[in-house]
Amino acid sequence: MNKRTLLLCLTTVMLFAGQTAYAQDATTAQLLELFQESFDMLWLVLAAALVFFMQAGFAMVETGLTRAKNAGNIIMKNLMDFSVGAMAYWAVGWGLMYGASIGGFIGGDEFLLAGADYVIYRDWMFQVVFAATAATIVSGAMAERTKFTGYLVYSLIITAVVYPISGHWIWSDDGWLGAMGFHDFAGSTVVHSVGAWAAMVGAIFLGARRGKYVKVDGKTVPKALPGHNMPLAALGVFILWFGWYGFNGGSTLSGTDLDIAHVFVTTTLGASAGAVGAMITSWLAFGKPDPSFSLNGALAGLVGITAGTWVISPFGAVVIGALAGVLVIGSVELFDKVLHIDDPVGAVSVHGVCGVWGTLAVGLFATGVNDPDVVGLFYGGGLGQFGVQLLGVVAVFAWVVVTSAVLFGILKATNNLRVSDTEELIGLDIGEHGMESYSGFQIFNNM
Amino acid sequence: MNKRTLLLCLTTVMLFAGQTAYAQDATTAQLLELFQESFDMLWLVLAAALVFFMQAGFAMVETGLTRAKNAGNIIMKNLMDFSVGAMAYWAVGWGLMYGASIGGFIGGDEFLLAGADYVIYRDWMFQVVFAATAATIVSGAMAERTKFTGYLVYSLIITAVVYPISGHWIWSDDGWLGAMGFHDFAGSTVVHSVGAWAAMVGAIFLGARRGKYVKVDGKTVPKALPGHNMPLAALGVFILWFGWYGFNGGSTLSGTDLDIAHVFVTTTLGASAGAVGAMITSWLAFGKPDPSFSLNGALAGLVGITAGTWVISPFGAVVIGALAGVLVIGSVELFDKVLHIDDPVGAVSVHGVCGVWGTLAVGLFATGVNDPDVVGLFYGGGLGQFGVQLLGVVAVFAWVVVTSAVLFGILKATNNLRVSDTEELIGLDIGEHGMESYSGFQIFNNM
Amino acid sequence: MNKRTLLLCLTTVMLFAGQTAYAQDATTAQLLELFQESFDMLWLVLAAALVFFMQAGFAMVETGLTRAKNAGNIIMKNLMDFSVGAMAYWAVGWGLMYGASIGGFIGGDEFLLAGADYVIYRDWMFQVVFAATAATIVSGAMAERTKFTGYLVYSLIITAVVYPISGHWIWSDDGWLGAMGFHDFAGSTVVHSVGAWAAMVGAIFLGARRGKYVKVDGKTVPKALPGHNMPLAALGVFILWFGWYGFNGGSTLSGTDLDIAHVFVTTTLGASAGAVGAMITSWLAFGKPDPSFSLNGALAGLVGITAGTWVISPFGAVVIGALAGVLVIGSVELFDKVLHIDDPVGAVSVHGVCGVWGTLAVGLFATGVNDPDVVGLFYGGGLGQFGVQLLGVVAVFAWVVVTSAVLFGILKATNNLRVSDTEELIGLDIGEHGMESYSGFQIFNNM
Repeated sequence: MNKRTLLLCLTTVMLFAGQTAYAQDATTAQLLELFQESFDMLWLVLAAALVFFMQAGFAMVETGLTRAKNAGNIIMKNLMDFSVGAMAYWAVGWGLMYGASIGGFIGGDEFLLAGADYVIYRDWMFQVVFAATAATIVSGAMAERTKFTGYLVYSLIITAVVYPISGHWIWSDDGWLGAMGFHDFAGSTVVHSVGAWAAMVGAIFLGARRGKYVKVDGKTVPKALPGHNMPLAALGVFILWFGWYGFNGGSTLSGTDLDIAHVFVTTTLGASAGAVGAMITSWLAFGKPDPSFSLNGALAGLVGITAGTWVISPFGAVVIGALAGVLVIGSVELFDKVLHIDDPVGAVSVHGVCGVWGTLAVGLFATGVNDPDVVGLFYGGGLGQFGVQLLGVVAVFAWVVVTSAVLFGILKATNNLRVSDTEELIGLDIGEHGMESYSGFQIFNNM
Repeated sequence: MNKRTLLLCLTTVMLFAGQTAYAQDATTAQLLELFQESFDMLWLVLAAALVFFMQAGFAMVETGLTRAKNAGNIIMKNLMDFSVGAMAYWAVGWGLMYGASIGGFIGGDEFLLAGADYVIYRDWMFQVVFAATAATIVSGAMAERTKFTGYLVYSLIITAVVYPISGHWIWSDDGWLGAMGFHDFAGSTVVHSVGAWAAMVGAIFLGARRGKYVKVDGKTVPKALPGHNMPLAALGVFILWFGWYGFNGGSTLSGTDLDIAHVFVTTTLGASAGAVGAMITSWLAFGKPDPSFSLNGALAGLVGITAGTWVISPFGAVVIGALAGVLVIGSVELFDKVLHIDDPVGAVSVHGVCGVWGTLAVGLFATGVNDPDVVGLFYGGGLGQFGVQLLGVVAVFAWVVVTSAVLFGILKATNNLRVSDTEELIGLDIGEHGMESYSGFQIFNNM
Repeated sequence: MNKRTLLLCLTTVMLFAGQTAYAQDATTAQLLELFQESFDMLWLVLAAALVFFMQAGFAMVETGLTRAKNAGNIIMKNLMDFSVGAMAYWAVGWGLMYGASIGGFIGGDEFLLAGADYVIYRDWMFQVVFAATAATIVSGAMAERTKFTGYLVYSLIITAVVYPISGHWIWSDDGWLGAMGFHDFAGSTVVHSVGAWAAMVGAIFLGARRGKYVKVDGKTVPKALPGHNMPLAALGVFILWFGWYGFNGGSTLSGTDLDIAHVFVTTTLGASAGAVGAMITSWLAFGKPDPSFSLNGALAGLVGITAGTWVISPFGAVVIGALAGVLVIGSVELFDKVLHIDDPVGAVSVHGVCGVWGTLAVGLFATGVNDPDVVGLFYGGGLGQFGVQLLGVVAVFAWVVVTSAVLFGILKATNNLRVSDTEELIGLDIGEHGMESYSGFQIFNNM
C-alpha cells in the first residue's frame, strides 16, 4: 500500500513535470503507471484464480475423508457455498468489509459493487475467494448429517455478514484490530479461524454422526468412520497447497513486492514441516505413519504459516509448521476422544487450532526484517505483539462463536439443521439429492 | 488490439525522439516496449496454460457422468482430441483462421507456422487451446458408443478446418462477421457453439445408446443411465471454472488491459448464478436439488457469460448466468424427453443452447461502458447489436451443421461411426482398448 | 534484499533530487529496474507453483497405474518426498547445487539459505520444485513393495546430495559440464534422468513384485498387474502436462524472455506428438490403441522435449516427441519382457530413456536460432554438440547409478528396502499404514 501510494504520487508529479517539457516523458510516466497497475492486476487475478481452485481442494479432501454414500452431498455443498457466497459477497459482504468504515467496526457502502472501478473489481475478485474459503471450511466439520437447506442459509450468512465484519476489523484500512497492530498477513485468523469456529459451533449444535460414539461399559467410546477415497483426499491436499501460493503470495497485494519470494519460501517450508511433523507424531502415537494425519499435517502447516508468512524467517517457518503438525493431531484427539465433538475431517483442528497457533506465532517469531513494526518475542520484540495477537484471536473467536450460535440455534429450532436418522443411514446422496455418486460400484456403507 | 497498436506507435515515436537527444531515453523506450510485450506474453501463455488445463476438466466431467465401463475410452478421446488437434492446428488450422484473409472467409498462409516470430508463437499457443476446447466438447455428447477411429478423424477435421474457418469470420482482423460488429469476446459462439453443434449432429447420426430409450405401451420413454463418479465430475467442473479465468481473462489479449478484473468479476458471478439457477430449477422441477444439473448449471453460466464478459455489468452477469442455469435444464429435458437425442453429459445444452443465449445476451445486456460500439437493447442500444448477434449465431450454426453432417455422414456410411452392440454392451474400454479402467473393483455395468 | 534496499534508497534520494532537478529520469530508471525484477519474480514463482502442482500429477499417475491396496502408500510417498525433500534442499541441497563452486564439481555455501536475499529466495523456490520432481519419479518404479522408512531415507539423500551435485555440474554458473557446452534447458537429464536412474537401481535392488514374473515351462513370463484407476492416471497426466508449462517455460529464468512462447509451442507439440506416437505404436504392436501407453507417450514426449525446448523448431519438437512416444513403448517392453526389471508405472522408460533421447536430440535438432552456440547435426552443427550431450548423459548416468547403488545397497543390507511377503500380499496400505484407501468398496486385490 505504502509503496503504491508513493508511486502514484511520483507519477502524478512526473505528469506535471512532463507538461512543461517533453511529451515523451509524460508518456513514459503514464506507461510506468499503467505497468505498475498491470503488475498488481495480473498478480491479484492470478492469485485469485489459484485461491478459487482451492474450492476443488476442499471438495476433494472432504469427499475423500467421508463416506461414499454422502459424496454427492459434499460436492453440492462445496459448489454452493462458493456460488451462493460469491453473490452474497457481491451484494452485501464486500460493502460490510471494505466499504467506508463506521467506527472501525463495519463498512457501510459499495454494496452490489456500486460505483466500482477496475481497482475495486480487482480487489473484490481477490477477496471473494477468501470469503468463500472461510465458508467452505465449515462443510467438512458438519459433513454427513447436515440438512442442505440449513447449509445454504448458513453459507449465505457467513459470507454476507459474519466473515466480512471481523474481516473489516483487521484488513480494512480503518479496522480497530488492524489499528492496534494486529498482524495476520494472509488470514490464519481472518479466514481460517473464522471458518473453523463456525464449523465447531455447527458440529456441536448438530451432534455426532450416528454410530460415531458408542457406549461401552458406561463409557463413551469413539468409533472410526473411515473416509472412502484417500487418493481424492490427497489430490485435494495437493490442490490446496498449490492454491495456497496464491492465498499467501497474493496477499502482498502488489505484483512488485519482491518479498513474494519470501512468502513462497516460508509457505513451502511451513507446509513441508507440517506434513513431516504430523507423520512423525502419528508414528510415535499410533505405531504407524498415518496418511490422513500426514495430509492434515500439511494443511496444518499451511494454516499455521499463513499469518506470519511475510514476517518470519524460513527457520521460523519450519518450527511453526512442525509444531502445527504436532498440534493438529493432539487437537483432533482432544475433540474426538475427550470433548466428543464429531468433526469428520478435522477441520476445527486444522483451521481453528492451527489458525490460532499461527496467529500467536507471529508474536513469537516475527523477525522485524520485512516489517519493522512487527517483532516477536524471540527476536527481541517483547510480549507486545503477542498480546495484540492474542487479543485478535479472542475477539474473532467471540464474534464468530456468538453469531454462529445464534444462527445454528435458529436453524436447529426450526428443524433445518439435521437430516433424519433414516436419511443419514441411507446416505445424504439419496436422501437429500435422490442420486448415487458411484453408480454401478458395489459399496458397503458403514453406519 | 487498439491500445497495443497505439502503444507501439508511441514507442516508435519515442525511439526516434530518443536518437536526437538522450541515449538513456532510447533505452527507456526500448525497455518500455519490451515490458509491454512481456506483459502480453506472460498473460497469454499463463492464460493458455489455464485453458489447456480445461482439457482435464472436460475429461473428468465426461468420465464422471458416464459409466465405468467406458471410462478409459473417454480418457483416450480427451487426450487424443488435444494431441491430434494441436498438430492439426499447427499444420493447417492456424493458417486457415489467422492467415492472410481471402475475402473475409478464410485465411491462406502461415501453415505449419511458417515464418512465425514470437508474436505468432504466442498467439498460436493461446489459440490452439481454444481450438482443442471446441473439439473436446464433442466427445461428451458422443460418449459410450462412438468408434475410436471415427472420433480421431472427426477431431482432426474440426481442429484443422471446421473451427478455424468460422473462427476466421469472427476473430481474424478481416473476418466478415467481425466486420459487421458481431461481438463474441471469448467464444460463446466461436468455441462453445461450434463444438456443441458438431456434437449434436454427431449424436443424431450415432443414435442413442442401447437401453437409453425403451418402448412402453408404444411410447418412447427415456431411461437414466447414471454416471459412475460424481466426485470426478465435480472436480472436472471446478477445473473448468478455474481454467475459464484464463479463457475469458486471456481474451483481453493484452496483459495491460485493466478490465481484466471486470472480466474476472463477471465470469465469477455468471458461473455462480448459473449453479444457483440450475439448483433452484432442479429443485422446483424434480423435488430435490440435483448435483449434476447444478454442476452443469455452473458450466452453463460460464458458457453464457463468455461472449459478453467484457461488455456487461456484474448485474447483467448474474441475470445471464441465472437464466443460463434455468435454460440448461429445459434444454436437457427437451433433447432427452422430446427430441430423443441422446447426449450423455448434456454437452449440446450446456455449450450450444447456452452459447447461443450468451451470444444473444450481448445484444441485450451490453452496457457500452468498456466498448462504446457494443450496446444492448436494455441499455439503449436498440435491436441493432441483437440482430448482428443473431446473424452470427445462425451463420455459425449453418456452417457447423452442414460440415458436420457431411463428415459424420461419411463416417457412418463407411462404418466408422458406431461400435458394435456387443462392444457397447461389454464397454468400450474392453472393446476398443482391451483394458479395464477400475481393475479389482466390483462393478455392475448397467446397460 | 541487497538490490531491493539499494532500490529503495535510490528512490528516496530521487525524491529529494526530484525537487531540484530531473527527479523524473532517475525515478524512471529505478522503476524500470523494479519492473524487470518483478517480471522475473512473478514468472518464476508462478512457474514454481505450476511445477509444485506436478507433485499431484505424479501422485495421481502412480496411484492410478498401481493396485488399490497400495494407493495410500503411494500417496504418502509422494507427499513425503516433497516434504522431506524441501527441507533437505533448504538445509543442504541448494548449497551443494548453487553455492560457491569448488572446482566446478560441488557448491559449498548458502546452506540453510544463509544470507539469502530475495533473488536467492526466488531462485530457491524455483529450484526446490525441480529437486522434488527428480525425487518423486523414483516412487513409481519402486511402487507396491518398498518399505516406507527406506523410501524416506532415499528421498532425503537424493534431494540433499545426489541431485544437487550433478545439477551443479550443469546448471550452476561454474559447473564443469555446463562449461563444456552441455545444453539441457529444463532438465531432461538434470531432473528426469537423475530420478529415473535412481529408480532403475532401486527397482533392481528391490526385485519384482510378487506374482509379476511366473515360470512357465522353465521360461520367465511377465504378468500384467493392471492399475486400478485409469481416470486418476489420466488426470495425473493432464496435471503433469499443465505443470510442465511452468517447468519448461520457467526455465527461461526471465519473465521478459519473449521466447517463452517458443518454449510453450515446442512443449505442446512435443507432448502431443508423443501421445500420438505411442498410440499408433501400441495399436500396431498390440492390436488396439492402449490408454496407458498413450498417456505415458504424452509424458515421454514432454520429457523428450524438455532439454531442447528452447533451441529446436516446432517441426523438431514433433519429430522428437513422436519418436519419444515410440521409444517409450519399446523401452517398457525391453525392461519388462527382456530385462525383467519390474517398473510398475514405466518411470525408467519415460524419464530415463526418453530423457536420454531428449538430451541427445539437442545435438541433432538444435537450430541455432535462439542460441547460436547450440547447433545440432541436422542443422549444420556437426557432431560436436551431440558429443557433449552424450558425455553429459554418460556422466550423469554413472554418478546416479553409483551413488544409488551404494544407497540402496545399504538400505537392502540393513533390511530397510523391501516389505515382507505378507505385507505385500495384503497391501502396503494395511501393512505400512494401518488403513484402507477405499473403505466400503468391494475390491478384489490381484496378487
